[in-house]
Amino acid sequence: MDLTRLMLRLYFGELMLGPGKAALLEAIASEGSISAAGRKMGMSYKRAWQLVEAMNAGFREPLVESARGGAKGGGAHLTPTGHEVLAAYRNLEATVLEAGAEDIARIKALLAAQ
Amino acid sequence: MDLTRLMLRLYFGELMLGPGKAALLEAIASEGSISAAGRKMGMSYKRAWQLVEAMNAGFREPLVESARGGAKGGGAHLTPTGHEVLAAYRNLEATVLEAGAEDIARIKALLAAQ
Repeated sequence: MDLTRLMLRLYFGELMLGPGKAALLEAIASEGSISAAGRKMGMSYKRAWQLVEAMNAGFREPLVESARGGAKGGGAHLTPTGHEVLAAYRNLEATVLEAGAEDIARIKALLAAQ
Repeated sequence: MDLTRLMLRLYFGELMLGPGKAALLEAIASEGSISAAGRKMGMSYKRAWQLVEAMNAGFREPLVESARGGAKGGGAHLTPTGHEVLAAYRNLEATVLEAGAEDIARIKALLAAQ
């Protein structure tokens, strides 16, 4: 049985950054709106907004800029800080898999046969 | 704001290995019983047993051996496999912090002042 999922959460005081927020940032970048991103993730609009607000409050610059209530119902996009945080998080995940490959293999070698 | 906590969960199919199970293994090693380990962690005896059973079922050899219902109410200890899995998990956490230091610093540099 291979490693099927890695879940990495970083806590900086009150702010938590994990797979859900990273995926939401990616969905906002691809969908161009918070509501569409939330739908894509099966998340309520309210929940998606709460996560965005928590991230925006936790960083010096907002990660997501939105035109809430605009004519189009509000588009949204990642700021440069948003792209940077997302890239660092995804890079960290890749780093874990690469640098941690030996430890993960040690565990895998002891797993029960499936 | 420094990184205050790292939470790393590994999923191998049905089996999840994370901070709670690692801490439980450590507590069993130090306390010498599953019930005492559960108490130390503020966890019910039933919950502690469930976690141990999930781990024991997921690996080729059990991670915890116990004398359930013995004269002393059942002592427990880690097997060599239990020690090995715990060591690999703790090493992986340290590896993440070390190899991921640059990515974590990139994120930290963007955090709001506290």
